[in-house]
Amino acid sequence: MQIRVYYEDTDAGGIVYHTRYINFCERARSEIFFNNGMLPTGGEKSGFVVRKINADFLGSAKLGDLLEVKSRLVELKRSSTTLRQEVWLGEEKLFAMTILLVYMDHGKISRIPKHFLELFELL
Amino acid sequence: MQIRVYYEDTDAGGIVYHTRYINFCERARSEIFFNNGMLPTGGEKSGFVVRKINADFLGSAKLGDLLEVKSRLVELKRSSTTLRQEVWLGEEKLFAMTILLVYMDHGKISRIPKHFLELFELL
Amino acid sequence: MQIRVYYEDTDAGGIVYHTRYINFCERARSEIFFNNGMLPTGGEKSGFVVRKINADFLGSAKLGDLLEVKSRLVELKRSSTTLRQEVWLGEEKLFAMTILLVYMDHGKISRIPKHFLELFELL
Amino acid sequence: MQIRVYYEDTDAGGIVYHTRYINFCERARSEIFFNNGMLPTGGEKSGFVVRKINADFLGSAKLGDLLEVKSRLVELKRSSTTLRQEVWLGEEKLFAMTILLVYMDHGKISRIPKHFLELFELL
Repeated sequence: MQIRVYYEDTDAGGIVYHTRYINFCERARSEIFFNNGMLPTGGEKSGFVVRKINADFLGSAKLGDLLEVKSRLVELKRSSTTLRQEVWLGEEKLFAMTILLVYMDHGKISRIPKHFLELFELL
Repeated sequence: MQIRVYYEDTDAGGIVYHTRYINFCERARSEIFFNNGMLPTGGEKSGFVVRKINADFLGSAKLGDLLEVKSRLVELKRSSTTLRQEVWLGEEKLFAMTILLVYMDHGKISRIPKHFLELFELL
Repeated sequence: MQIRVYYEDTDAGGIVYHTRYINFCERARSEIFFNNGMLPTGGEKSGFVVRKINADFLGSAKLGDLLEVKSRLVELKRSSTTLRQEVWLGEEKLFAMTILLVYMDHGKISRIPKHFLELFELL
Repeated sequence: MQIRVYYEDTDAGGIVYHTRYINFCERARSEIFFNNGMLPTGGEKSGFVVRKINADFLGSAKLGDLLEVKSRLVELKRSSTTLRQEVWLGEEKLFAMTILLVYMDHGKISRIPKHFLELFELL
């Protein structure tokens, strides 16, 4: 998935604001669902919630750069999943994170619906 | 209402990204409600929606600036209200807009609840 | 230009936060330059600054929507330009604005560089 | 440091978008400098860069909540520093992260200026 860096992604330091890389990864996760004609929720009160992020900021992108987000499945459990996501600028890795997502239904941890499990297995 | 400019508000041009001034004004409108122990909604499916904005960008703020947002009522009707909001840096007016808000309930224009009308009358 | 609506674009009202439409239009303006291998600046201290926005919010987009931004030139002067930009969801116009941009160099209004004028004339 | 949750901080899930907690922590770090009449940079091309974030998302804030950010020094070295930052809603801890910041000057890791070291020692 390709992502362009716009003014709104940069800050006065002249480079991309640090949390934008994490947002870019969220876009890539959402596209997994959108590309399959789904929304990343199971209705009004259920969906994936971010529980943990371990992130390394390795380089900087700037205005106009065209970045690529790569996502891969690390672990898939009944009610949670761990992904590895990276942001690349050409041959340079700018950002990498491991993210733990938990599935919540009406405020409680619950089983990931089957059609969502199948999506993650394709990663 | 005072608002500090943080990195997230700036862009690679070294100044505050243009739509952030409009966000700052939205914060000031929300504080009208929060300060009175209310939320700016009348439940799940009702609340104010922005219909029109006429904005003039007169100057630029930068990282660390402490801005002031001034809001005043222009017109209050049964289901809409017009406000004038300005952003100041000390004696310098950086931004001014006239904004028309419409009250919606389940997707239809409807009367502004009385306790909200009273709040706007105090502006 | 097509733009997907992600979680970061929405708010607790369940729809796209109002200033995001204006950001989407900024992305479309920047792409005019990026698509032609240029940055929308003329160096460290020069570039286009937003002076005026008159915006109408006509409808609402939600998570996962695929929007289209249409831009057209209204007026091109020596040191400023006026554009009309609209955001569409299929056949429905959600947002329209007229925007006045001024070219600044080291804090002063100055002539728009020729290669930028040529870009706008193609709109 | 207290931070109010506004519409722009929330998403269609009805709660604060996950990366906003990290932004709130960045605001708190910047205030360390602003409160002492400084900017968090050492000129045009130098300043702190985020290198690592280990974050736990423990709870959710919603529109209108008044949050508190607590920051404490974990380690201070010649050219880097590690902080522990938490976001609280009353007695409930919503978010906690350990962040490693590196000081860069013209693209190279360099010594943290003395007046910045002194600020961190006060944390």
